[in-house]
Amino acid sequence: MVQTDTYYMQQALREAQKAFDAGEVPIGAVLVMQDRIIARAHNQVELLKDPTAHAEVLAITAACDQMGAKYLPDATLYVTLEPCLMCSGALFWSKIGRIVFGANDPGNGYAQKVKTSPFHPKTKLEGGLLAQECLALMQGFFKNRR
Amino acid sequence: MVQTDTYYMQQALREAQKAFDAGEVPIGAVLVMQDRIIARAHNQVELLKDPTAHAEVLAITAACDQMGAKYLPDATLYVTLEPCLMCSGALFWSKIGRIVFGANDPGNGYAQKVKTSPFHPKTKLEGGLLAQECLALMQGFFKNRR
Repeated sequence: MVQTDTYYMQQALREAQKAFDAGEVPIGAVLVMQDRIIARAHNQVELLKDPTAHAEVLAITAACDQMGAKYLPDATLYVTLEPCLMCSGALFWSKIGRIVFGANDPGNGYAQKVKTSPFHPKTKLEGGLLAQECLALMQGFFKNRR
Repeated sequence: MVQTDTYYMQQALREAQKAFDAGEVPIGAVLVMQDRIIARAHNQVELLKDPTAHAEVLAITAACDQMGAKYLPDATLYVTLEPCLMCSGALFWSKIGRIVFGANDPGNGYAQKVKTSPFHPKTKLEGGLLAQECLALMQGFFKNRR
């Protein structure tokens, strides 16, 4: 069944909510190929005590494992927050077909840190989908911790 | 026993040679804490079919797993090649104490891609150690594949 970008971002938000509930910075991602979610992931830095365990990295690794391929040119990653430099680099190496992210991240997002796009030339990019919902989850998390 | 930076970079080169022998782009890393190597890793992108399986990421993940900590402020990473954006981001999140790399990587290294240092403000950085040996391994690898 063909779903909309909004539907898949809502699924990414569900992943982010799982992170929130687990005391992790609430960022979630789903990876979609041929109208099917092939990987779901949320930030697990605290659980795994692994600074590389961001939602995007976990989703890429899981999807590549499932596909038996190191490139994902036909996949779309939906992620609730603008990727950081690490995740942007991981997405570059994966040659992912398309990235759709939710809220901007002026603090740690890639956009303000790089001279030119960090992604593969063939990767399509879209930001701002359900940005308010994605941001509200982050703000709720950090408000709770103050 | 206190060893020199050169010794540890030679150990990173041994890891890079393992990658070379396995048909992987020959990049190796060791992670040192209190004069002890706590993680050794080499590029395993092909073996794992995982675009995130760079030597640095594998070394950070292994070291954090061993330490049960998500930060490595007292560790030094020795890596044979200038880190890419992904690995630079991973090193940022790890708050690693010091990075020593071998050869520059004008193609995929972080330096030409970022506006300012991608590393944590407290991270010390040094490049160019055994650069010729590190580069020779890379050149030998790509020459063999032409």
